[in-house]
Amino acid sequence: MPGASADSVLTGDARLPKSYRVRAELEELLAELSEGDPLPSERELALRCGVARETVRQAVRELLVEGRIRRQGRGTVVSRPKMVQPLSLRSYTEGALKFGRTPGRLLVGWNDVPADSDVARDLGVAPGTVVTHLERILLADGERIGLESTWMPLPRFAFLREFYDPTTSLYAATRSRGVVYVSATERIETMLASPREAALLECTTALPMLLLHRRSVDAEGSPIELVRSLYRGDRIAFQATLRDY
Amino acid sequence: MPGASADSVLTGDARLPKSYRVRAELEELLAELSEGDPLPSERELALRCGVARETVRQAVRELLVEGRIRRQGRGTVVSRPKMVQPLSLRSYTEGALKFGRTPGRLLVGWNDVPADSDVARDLGVAPGTVVTHLERILLADGERIGLESTWMPLPRFAFLREFYDPTTSLYAATRSRGVVYVSATERIETMLASPREAALLECTTALPMLLLHRRSVDAEGSPIELVRSLYRGDRIAFQATLRDY
Repeated sequence: MPGASADSVLTGDARLPKSYRVRAELEELLAELSEGDPLPSERELALRCGVARETVRQAVRELLVEGRIRRQGRGTVVSRPKMVQPLSLRSYTEGALKFGRTPGRLLVGWNDVPADSDVARDLGVAPGTVVTHLERILLADGERIGLESTWMPLPRFAFLREFYDPTTSLYAATRSRGVVYVSATERIETMLASPREAALLECTTALPMLLLHRRSVDAEGSPIELVRSLYRGDRIAFQATLRDY
Repeated sequence: MPGASADSVLTGDARLPKSYRVRAELEELLAELSEGDPLPSERELALRCGVARETVRQAVRELLVEGRIRRQGRGTVVSRPKMVQPLSLRSYTEGALKFGRTPGRLLVGWNDVPADSDVARDLGVAPGTVVTHLERILLADGERIGLESTWMPLPRFAFLREFYDPTTSLYAATRSRGVVYVSATERIETMLASPREAALLECTTALPMLLLHRRSVDAEGSPIELVRSLYRGDRIAFQATLRDY
């Protein structure tokens, strides 16, 4: 088997080496540039690589989606590196600070709403039971990078109304009142933003997003929260440490 | 703050309630249908919801990317649920079997190659050092769901050449020879497939993918492998259990 390669058989596409070469040339170029530096135009890149504009456009699209470059005016410039957040029960605030970014939040809504069937199942209440729903935009250095919806059971979390400022860490506030997050199940998927979500995150509906669903429980196994977080895929990555069983 | 909602202010888009309503109607419809059932045409859905075709098209696009429905002939049908894989040091084989899917692999290539700077750094060798690179398509019930590249140091893993069948579990093979995967760092991102990757996974370059980078070490902290896995975002989700610190 060593040395075997079924590439050409599996793809049967003679154009592929070109997109490879363009990508490799762009990688070399990016390695020499710094944050904020402009990239040459697509026309110039096509000339330099000796390929069609469309081949360059595909490679540029990939780099945009990966957050390596971003649009600025009519051109593109080198982006800041993606923020890497740990997959953990610590708060977004802690993760952002650790990565050297200033966390922030914008309140979208804080309402008591009847639980739909999914929320009801995850919070262990009957459908239609009134729960608290908090929706916030997550900021990193003022940039909108995520949209977070949290549902919490009532009356347990009614105390938040007394003192909590929803532009600050929810975990810090609930922990200060003795809530203990013992474990959580987190599911990670990718999807496209809906028009509403794209508008809130100031991006297009064509940008891949990371979707995280978290259900946290306390020491008794009672559900504390259900969180649905949508993150801009070009601005954030998640990291986990896995240990042997 | 309770009761406050800045939606309209933040988005200023009067069309949004429509896309919401269409999505909700489609969710209701999907709840009544079973795997393989056809969806009504976009024209029919637009008539039923009393909205423009484009509004329905956006909702259908979202459902396709999420893997809730898939194209079949000129229409769309209800998909099987996404496979959920645990984020763990167990193998893909174990995860797929646990989820009730038959795992499989297609060999794309198995070559000894010089390490580029990223691979060299992660495997702790000098750039240009020859390492083993194994590239495989991951299958679930015969369907192509992922493309996995593994780089391993030589001569440590030269023994694989003696007996290993690359269409089977790599972890099972290495563990049978005493390799102990003690911990790994895994980074999760989203991106678009390159033309080559899309061809190998039989999807389009517009489909969001999950990209996992894993670096595993043994008990001495020596790097055992670097893995870059690209998964079809419409066919798979990952799940982690988080515990309090």
